[in-house]
Amino acid sequence: MRVAVIGGSTVSDEQYRQARDVGRLLGKRGHEVVCGGLGGVMEAVCAGAREAGGHTIGVLPNADRKRANDYVDTAIATGMGSARNVLVVMNGDAVIAVDGSTGTLSELGHALDMDRPVAGLGTHSLEGITHVDSAEAAVDHVESAVQ
Amino acid sequence: MRVAVIGGSTVSDEQYRQARDVGRLLGKRGHEVVCGGLGGVMEAVCAGAREAGGHTIGVLPNADRKRANDYVDTAIATGMGSARNVLVVMNGDAVIAVDGSTGTLSELGHALDMDRPVAGLGTHSLEGITHVDSAEAAVDHVESAVQ
Amino acid sequence: MRVAVIGGSTVSDEQYRQARDVGRLLGKRGHEVVCGGLGGVMEAVCAGAREAGGHTIGVLPNADRKRANDYVDTAIATGMGSARNVLVVMNGDAVIAVDGSTGTLSELGHALDMDRPVAGLGTHSLEGITHVDSAEAAVDHVESAVQ
Amino acid sequence: MRVAVIGGSTVSDEQYRQARDVGRLLGKRGHEVVCGGLGGVMEAVCAGAREAGGHTIGVLPNADRKRANDYVDTAIATGMGSARNVLVVMNGDAVIAVDGSTGTLSELGHALDMDRPVAGLGTHSLEGITHVDSAEAAVDHVESAVQ
Repeated sequence: MRVAVIGGSTVSDEQYRQARDVGRLLGKRGHEVVCGGLGGVMEAVCAGAREAGGHTIGVLPNADRKRANDYVDTAIATGMGSARNVLVVMNGDAVIAVDGSTGTLSELGHALDMDRPVAGLGTHSLEGITHVDSAEAAVDHVESAVQ
Repeated sequence: MRVAVIGGSTVSDEQYRQARDVGRLLGKRGHEVVCGGLGGVMEAVCAGAREAGGHTIGVLPNADRKRANDYVDTAIATGMGSARNVLVVMNGDAVIAVDGSTGTLSELGHALDMDRPVAGLGTHSLEGITHVDSAEAAVDHVESAVQ
Repeated sequence: MRVAVIGGSTVSDEQYRQARDVGRLLGKRGHEVVCGGLGGVMEAVCAGAREAGGHTIGVLPNADRKRANDYVDTAIATGMGSARNVLVVMNGDAVIAVDGSTGTLSELGHALDMDRPVAGLGTHSLEGITHVDSAEAAVDHVESAVQ
Repeated sequence: MRVAVIGGSTVSDEQYRQARDVGRLLGKRGHEVVCGGLGGVMEAVCAGAREAGGHTIGVLPNADRKRANDYVDTAIATGMGSARNVLVVMNGDAVIAVDGSTGTLSELGHALDMDRPVAGLGTHSLEGITHVDSAEAAVDHVESAVQ
């Protein structure tokens, strides 16, 4: 399947590691990653996924796809600013959120609105999100939620 | 100023009344209303604003602007589905949320992400929202927050 | 009805006058104007419509609605760059094009794609556009085409 | 590089073959293909590119990425209707148009507006497009135009 991974564009080392672990596991288990294509959690998950041979997609707010982080395989420019947040979650079968601020909150709202299963790692506490405490538990959750 | 009013498309009678009061006060105090243009809170706030002589704008998810509720003065079709949620909050100087489910949650995320002051009436409990308990307190809050 | 008026953001004096005449006639005959909200033809048509007491809507590429020209009554920010071109024509029942370059060409394509009647004043020569030679003929055409 | 291939969703056998040849050549020469992800020219170019081992991206008007044709490797759902036309051309370094009606016309307008080099095979006759008469000439043109 394809998993949307969302989260802060500036993160602590610990969160970066966690997001990278999420990417590594997704790649290893044969899942594609879609994210917002920029830094922080977005970069970490792409770096991890690529390490494990997975395919990474970055849906950018910018009109120039060259602005993607170095670990995005398929960059999609939108030039739509934060309206691209909708596209990030629309393009995953499920969502994993790592940390994250207000942008991530908007994505969580859209994810729940589109009935996507969501696993949360230290992210906003919202009804409808399954909070877990490890990268592996996050990937396990979305795998079991999508058949 | 222009105030974005967001909230559920299906609401209780009590919430409908409250949203209508919000609209009435905004209209009376010379503010424009922008909303998602459909039913529930969106209809109620437009009905109230129009009653008070205010101008109402509805930014629709549909490609056909005729789908707006009867109290929208200026309907804007987008054909963009829930990506229009971004445009609703972008087009207000401040936001008032009445009740609301996951769609409203996504709008609150975008509102906070765009640094809009937000007053909440029985809506999601999130950091950054000023929770109030009357239509008047909501309008007072956004008035004081925007200069 | 509501008429989308499209055209160049930099125009000659003659084209500015023509677009202003289009706006004046639309306003006088009770039609709303929707346009891209910026300069050139967009400004001229809004200036003319407002002079005649008409309502003008500007759908902007920017995320800040304050960027609209001085004659826009209802500014809609989109933050979507040229994807807003689609919204300009979607929000008119018919289209009048005055001059215009590649942006206008994209709008003409969308207008024809959405089956909008189009009157052209010195604009791109395309199948499906009715070319006319005065502001009055343009307004007459869209009036007769929409019932 | 990445080439946006645009054109009609219903095409003749001859046009289908031509679009497939375009895809085959792009794949063979190591270029990615991005298109609108649906039928006709979009399907043909993806089929050809995949045959040659190329990577194909489909940017869909639908909110469900499963609606992509069978030869799309990376489907991107948008739920934005024809506003996705902008994203198709934005995501190519150059554009090849095969035949095509009004939707293609809007894409050509956006392509010229974004200064993308465009090769045309039996498509709209517009200033700024280099008209060629074979798939090979089209691919040669975009290769020489992008460095």
